Amino acid sequence: MSEHTARRPVLGTAASAEIFTRIITHGPVSRLDIGRLTGLSQAKVTKTVSPLIADGFVTVGEHAEHAFPGRPVRPLSVVPRSMIAVGVKVNADEIFAVTVSLGNEVIGSTRRRLTGHAPETTITAIVKSVTALVDQLGDDARFLTGVGVSVSGDIDTADGIVRDSPLLGWTHVPLGSLLSERLGLPVIVENDVRALAKSEQWFGVGTDADSFAIITIGAGIGCGIYVNGDVVVGAHGVAGEIGHLPLGPSDALCVCGRRGCVEAVASSHAIRDAVCQGHDDPTLTLADAIRLAHEGDPSAVDAFERAGTAIGAAVATTVNLFGPEVVVIAGEGVMDYDLYERRFREEFLAHVFGTAANCRLIVRRHTFVDWARGAAVAALREAISVAPGGPSD
Amino acid sequence: MSEHTARRPVLGTAASAEIFTRIITHGPVSRLDIGRLTGLSQAKVTKTVSPLIADGFVTVGEHAEHAFPGRPVRPLSVVPRSMIAVGVKVNADEIFAVTVSLGNEVIGSTRRRLTGHAPETTITAIVKSVTALVDQLGDDARFLTGVGVSVSGDIDTADGIVRDSPLLGWTHVPLGSLLSERLGLPVIVENDVRALAKSEQWFGVGTDADSFAIITIGAGIGCGIYVNGDVVVGAHGVAGEIGHLPLGPSDALCVCGRRGCVEAVASSHAIRDAVCQGHDDPTLTLADAIRLAHEGDPSAVDAFERAGTAIGAAVATTVNLFGPEVVVIAGEGVMDYDLYERRFREEFLAHVFGTAANCRLIVRRHTFVDWARGAAVAALREAISVAPGGPSD
Ligand SMILES: [Zn+2]
Ligand SMILES: [Zn+2]
Repeated sequence: MSEHTARRPVLGTAASAEIFTRIITHGPVSRLDIGRLTGLSQAKVTKTVSPLIADGFVTVGEHAEHAFPGRPVRPLSVVPRSMIAVGVKVNADEIFAVTVSLGNEVIGSTRRRLTGHAPETTITAIVKSVTALVDQLGDDARFLTGVGVSVSGDIDTADGIVRDSPLLGWTHVPLGSLLSERLGLPVIVENDVRALAKSEQWFGVGTDADSFAIITIGAGIGCGIYVNGDVVVGAHGVAGEIGHLPLGPSDALCVCGRRGCVEAVASSHAIRDAVCQGHDDPTLTLADAIRLAHEGDPSAVDAFERAGTAIGAAVATTVNLFGPEVVVIAGEGVMDYDLYERRFREEFLAHVFGTAANCRLIVRRHTFVDWARGAAVAALREAISVAPGGPSD
Repeated sequence: MSEHTARRPVLGTAASAEIFTRIITHGPVSRLDIGRLTGLSQAKVTKTVSPLIADGFVTVGEHAEHAFPGRPVRPLSVVPRSMIAVGVKVNADEIFAVTVSLGNEVIGSTRRRLTGHAPETTITAIVKSVTALVDQLGDDARFLTGVGVSVSGDIDTADGIVRDSPLLGWTHVPLGSLLSERLGLPVIVENDVRALAKSEQWFGVGTDADSFAIITIGAGIGCGIYVNGDVVVGAHGVAGEIGHLPLGPSDALCVCGRRGCVEAVASSHAIRDAVCQGHDDPTLTLADAIRLAHEGDPSAVDAFERAGTAIGAAVATTVNLFGPEVVVIAGEGVMDYDLYERRFREEFLAHVFGTAANCRLIVRRHTFVDWARGAAVAALREAISVAPGGPSD
């Protein structure tokens, strides 16, 4: 695939990148509104937008609306397929990949089971998935801008290194360079929840909320936080580790080795293990646990309620600390939300503080596409970012 | 005092305010470095700085250093007393006020006991304190820019309203307008911990850390968080409520009415109450509790250790969620840090996650000046802020 060159706009300054971003996230949008939203002058907006139009990234609306009598407004939009990124979500037992356009359209998707999760096995599978999706693009492959890969754990995005992913059993895997060599495309590696938050910022609740948290419930429990204009990354690469807050029962042992973590009672593994123990039957699956809870089995009901309690305390904690406008609850675990919703809400309301309780709580039906889309959006964002500290005009 | 007009620089744009801020926080600093730090052009820096020099806010260094051979660099600094703000910290039983210059110099200070804390009593005391400090300034009173007042609780800074301060028993007090009428000066009202974080951002750890949390321990337990270029305010005005995270024993009743809050075992009142209960003696004071703990009295030792455990879990929680570069532990309670340090560190290390543990932990000796300085810095910051969404050039 080395024949591809990555398609990227020329954006010399942080201000230009900001203007283009506004068109992506808020288009169709007038030059006037971009100026208002970014605080940049009309001259700067016009100067930035012209080459983007010439190069086919931005288009001028055909329908002239009128903001003031006699003053036609021709809104700007992105050309959806002017940039396409591949997003890959790596799980323990499978990878899921999508192609996503700058217009947030999912063009193609593919799911591939993993026979193991050694780095080499996983990298080969990623290359196969990406190649299949690129082939599917045909002529449009010339609009490819890069590949985003999202992995749970401690990720060094700047250097493309998976520092520590307990789920995969990886430490210090230079996934970015290994993949970009094979693919001949820029590769960005991102923490999965952070990638989801970034895609939410561009195309989800972030388009009209100044701050939000997205909390994902499933095999792991994570949290992406958007505040003060950006997703929180953590000075040392770790942030949003809501699954390892000491809000569970103090004796519960977590996969991370600590005691009292939220995940120790609220991850899907922890719920299944509790039901297995309650029935003295190690062969029960998560599906069994869900079925038993629906049937009113006491140990299964209890397992889900303990999970709901811990998640409620964790969401209240996040809200009390940074007071987001919106909280999105997402992830595979949301499928079984009915089993712990009551305890979750009780615990959340028992601990949320003052006006912070006014945050909007959204429970989002989970799809596998969301995760992979997050990785693709990370790649799109990277392609239009400008190194900080660069000159501006 | 209505003869004063507030001294403020003319800063038309957010970019100009950013340039001036860099001189305040990083001066002496060259035009070149300001450009590098802000991403703004040299032309913009020069255009912004000229009127600031002409109006006496900024001065050009006398000592010519040489960045490159033959290229003299004349660094820019603020004129320390070109702007002076009064900062007032309102406590339950006293108010503490300081005058602080733009150069972060404390010019004067005054402490006044309160006979009650009805709004009217407090406002009269604030007016007396501010008047005394302004009189002390003499001729320099012409450099007064405004008054900052900091209060614990839920504060609506935009409208100057104390929405809810359990400590003072105030709800919906329009403190800002009541005071500015009496004082004839702009008044900004801010949450006390947030004000402290803002002063820390300008003149403390924030000058060389990209993110930090400042945690204050005392009658209340609060947290100011600085991340992504600003102090976290909360979409609904509440943030940093670390004292009301459900990390204490689940049966402990908090002053806020909830159960299991950190403050329910770790505030100075909670510690004193526990020791009173242990000795079945309601007359014991906090000083008694501290003395008893130093003497090895089991119930006093236990009370401080329970406090340390809850604070350790709360700091780990903050760090796991935000991954700050630095955590500052401050407040009156730090005076007795030796009594709970061991349990605090044990609990922190037991729950902090991955590389987030690399954050720098600073225990800061408490002074009353710090709180009032925070309020003054809030006033200085307000005086050089530009309404968001304004035009930029
Ligand atoms: Zn854990
Ligand atoms: Zn409380």
